[in-house]
Amino acid sequence: MSLNAKGWETQAARCREILEQSIPKSYLLSADRLPPVSQTRVIDLPNESGNLSERELLITESTAAGLVAKMRSETWTAEEVMRAFLKRATMGQQLLNFATEFLEESALAQAKRLDEVFKETGEIVGPLHGVPISVKEHIGIKGRVCHGGFVSWCDHISPDDAYVIQFLQNSGAIVHVRTNEPQTLMHVDSANNITGRTLNPFNLNLSPGGSSGGEGASISFGCSPLGIGSDIGGSIRLPAAFNGVYGLRPTASRLPLAGLQAAGPGQESIHPVVGPLARSVEDLELFMKSILDQQPWQKDSSLTPVPWRSVDAPVNLTIGILKDDGVVRPHPPITRAIKIAEEKLLAAGVNVVQWEPFEHKEIYELGNAFFGADGFRHAREALAASGEPVLPLTEVAFSWGEEITVYSNWDLNYTREIFRAHYYGLMKLLGVDLILSPTYVGVVPEHETGTYIGYTSVWNVLDHPAVVIPTGLQVDQSLDTEDKSYAPRSELDAAEHTKYSPEKLKDAPICLQLIGQRFGDEELLSAAKFVEKIIVSS
Amino acid sequence: MSLNAKGWETQAARCREILEQSIPKSYLLSADRLPPVSQTRVIDLPNESGNLSERELLITESTAAGLVAKMRSETWTAEEVMRAFLKRATMGQQLLNFATEFLEESALAQAKRLDEVFKETGEIVGPLHGVPISVKEHIGIKGRVCHGGFVSWCDHISPDDAYVIQFLQNSGAIVHVRTNEPQTLMHVDSANNITGRTLNPFNLNLSPGGSSGGEGASISFGCSPLGIGSDIGGSIRLPAAFNGVYGLRPTASRLPLAGLQAAGPGQESIHPVVGPLARSVEDLELFMKSILDQQPWQKDSSLTPVPWRSVDAPVNLTIGILKDDGVVRPHPPITRAIKIAEEKLLAAGVNVVQWEPFEHKEIYELGNAFFGADGFRHAREALAASGEPVLPLTEVAFSWGEEITVYSNWDLNYTREIFRAHYYGLMKLLGVDLILSPTYVGVVPEHETGTYIGYTSVWNVLDHPAVVIPTGLQVDQSLDTEDKSYAPRSELDAAEHTKYSPEKLKDAPICLQLIGQRFGDEELLSAAKFVEKIIVSS
Repeated sequence: MSLNAKGWETQAARCREILEQSIPKSYLLSADRLPPVSQTRVIDLPNESGNLSERELLITESTAAGLVAKMRSETWTAEEVMRAFLKRATMGQQLLNFATEFLEESALAQAKRLDEVFKETGEIVGPLHGVPISVKEHIGIKGRVCHGGFVSWCDHISPDDAYVIQFLQNSGAIVHVRTNEPQTLMHVDSANNITGRTLNPFNLNLSPGGSSGGEGASISFGCSPLGIGSDIGGSIRLPAAFNGVYGLRPTASRLPLAGLQAAGPGQESIHPVVGPLARSVEDLELFMKSILDQQPWQKDSSLTPVPWRSVDAPVNLTIGILKDDGVVRPHPPITRAIKIAEEKLLAAGVNVVQWEPFEHKEIYELGNAFFGADGFRHAREALAASGEPVLPLTEVAFSWGEEITVYSNWDLNYTREIFRAHYYGLMKLLGVDLILSPTYVGVVPEHETGTYIGYTSVWNVLDHPAVVIPTGLQVDQSLDTEDKSYAPRSELDAAEHTKYSPEKLKDAPICLQLIGQRFGDEELLSAAKFVEKIIVSS
Repeated sequence: MSLNAKGWETQAARCREILEQSIPKSYLLSADRLPPVSQTRVIDLPNESGNLSERELLITESTAAGLVAKMRSETWTAEEVMRAFLKRATMGQQLLNFATEFLEESALAQAKRLDEVFKETGEIVGPLHGVPISVKEHIGIKGRVCHGGFVSWCDHISPDDAYVIQFLQNSGAIVHVRTNEPQTLMHVDSANNITGRTLNPFNLNLSPGGSSGGEGASISFGCSPLGIGSDIGGSIRLPAAFNGVYGLRPTASRLPLAGLQAAGPGQESIHPVVGPLARSVEDLELFMKSILDQQPWQKDSSLTPVPWRSVDAPVNLTIGILKDDGVVRPHPPITRAIKIAEEKLLAAGVNVVQWEPFEHKEIYELGNAFFGADGFRHAREALAASGEPVLPLTEVAFSWGEEITVYSNWDLNYTREIFRAHYYGLMKLLGVDLILSPTYVGVVPEHETGTYIGYTSVWNVLDHPAVVIPTGLQVDQSLDTEDKSYAPRSELDAAEHTKYSPEKLKDAPICLQLIGQRFGDEELLSAAKFVEKIIVSS
């Protein structure tokens, strides 16, 4: 509280200056090569604008696995791959403001080194050889600011690379850009008082989601083939869904958290996780396998020593279909997408059962209570330390819970364990291998309007792995008309219902969420490949 | 608070009546066959009193593995094994008051069934075929009272067998007796207002330890070859050490906790564990392997899916010797035992380094803060619900911590993670595979005097597995004289120092503690066998 408004603005400006300075100047497009401000859809610009060469387009539309194959076959060098992504990311930054910092110099240096090693040895250095990765800002990088969305932390310098980055670098990955996140890391959106607001490439008026919103935009626009996000209530999956890409919330304690900055790191009733966003399920697998094959638990003793397992394609899969969580009814495009998916799965001979939302309201509320168990005092202090304005979605997050006693927290922890045991038992009893569900009540909210996280946060509370996959469908005004049967169940339900307006969602991609069993990340991704093939088929 | 003193006494009496009724009457010894009340050492009585036949003695002095081998070879039947242990346990109960309930009828019925199956199939049903096990009372058994040391819970009936019992039963084990524990489960002793005080077979005036004190006495006296205890600050290891037997505190989340009763089950800053007490390291291994080979995480999704691994005998082991935790100086017999162990290890060519007590005071205090984070309100409420008198050691436990906010609890959790990372890193840096340490400041305290748990609780805070092994040494008044160099470091240190009086500890067995790395339970037990062989050699 000791600093006045000018104080926080100065702090934020210094941090913003880091971003400005870091943007690769050689790739900056002049205003005349950018679309008119009236154009809200920019996702097709890399292809249509002529700003990228055919070769640059080929590179930047590859998956991570595809890039590695092409570098191994000497079709592309790591350096040209990196330059192509830096170029596309610079364009992305001009349109979407998705970055907090570019690492052009170190990225190019590392790419050149990899090319030299490859030239000398004829071998790639690892399964992510030369793959550019974008990294959510609060995942620290040695010697660089790590603010976690708080102006007051703009002077925090990471003493080391976060462990997750170290493992990816060991595999050959190269961080070329750091990505934006909201104030407090607790919005379903990505705006802060430091580098501002990130936009959605499908429609600049729509939210990129949050808190890994910069990652969602990055992967979607092709600024990076692979990225690292984090998720405590949906923060990987919501941006993945809103930007039409893939995202995995792994089981907790498999990937290392050391080196992340967030308010109240000792909160353990819902464990945060890091995880990948990508352009294919295979790349999510590649990310997980690359790290877990290095036995990260040997470096970070807080992890569980569970290796990544190769699993066969699923046979006799039984999928539970969750159409509505009983709290907030999904919007028409989501309902349509689930119905189509269900029909295709049935037609493909997959066992499909209806999945009732077992205690979802209670589990969702439990999650909110955990988030706020300290009265959000850690976050409030980090805000007050600079005096920066508290953003509206921060106030929304602060309304999710209120300070409770340790006594109550223990009781809620116990309740959570009971829910976990019940949910696990129910899936087992009904023979359900995975659950197909909305990721969010709608396809994508407008900026500042996303608030309900129940479709994702219940899986954080229960600690089930969950993956977001695009369905291949888009919002269609003629099909996704108002739901005439709707009758509000609650104020919350009614409020979410009114947010739907199909005309604002033209051509927005529809994603769905697949949920597996705790520590069944391998089976989940294997099943996701199988299910995706069926769902996207025509 | 609504019940008067008479109310709680009635509740307790009903529960005590269950014990009285359950004692196998046919094995009860008349007063003239029991030692005179002046005799305090009773550990040798099974051998010397003539109350047990040679065959009964052979049976009841076998390890679990030895019993199974003899049943497999048709030398003994499960029924006669069970009868021998019931007989010895009845004698143990008359002398030590270690039990809360005998399960004679069901135990004999199960033993007979196993004999039939074996007769029919020629195969044992599992690795614990016919092994009698004693079980700490708060580990629930279907249809039976589970009070956890609280009078007010004397009407709590377990709906099912605790999972850990189910897995042991699947392996062929048979529960024949349930064992005593202190009020609140938080004493370094085992007395409550229900079934009273358990005594130590080496000296009835000494404590059997706690909170698994009934188990310690049970295994030591030969009432059972194998038992299940639980440990959140030393509750398996202290009774093991005080009664001269083996006890393992496994890494958390490997063995299932479902079906246990304790105050404040949602406390998660230090995870409680269940684990074995036994008469050999091999039996501790057998216990762990029997359960983990059944993949308990398939039944209890809160567990980590880490199978039991077969590991080779250690080579090039480096052992850190912790002689003093820097908080409370160990008593002379412990110091002597560690010194002798160190010399023997060196003579055997083992790498030995001195281990400095890295932040032990802070870690110990952190543990106490976690125990009391709810202001002990869960425990206080369970006491108040019956109005039973609060025992002195309960008051001591209540002084360990005071109510803190969730805000502070988060900060302490984070501090704990830092300590864990530091400690793990330090062991790795120094190449130390395991640490040899006291289990307790002394060999064994008198009743009601054991209070300092720092030598055990730090490993709960850090979540390292730890095993107690007897050294083969006993207290020797002529050798274990007062430490003339002693100068008190603190009030706590001085208070613990004055508790030492060697004349009261005549012939008490001296145990030590070996500590491994998180999830390195297998390596720890493998090393414990190796180390024990060296230490007990002459």
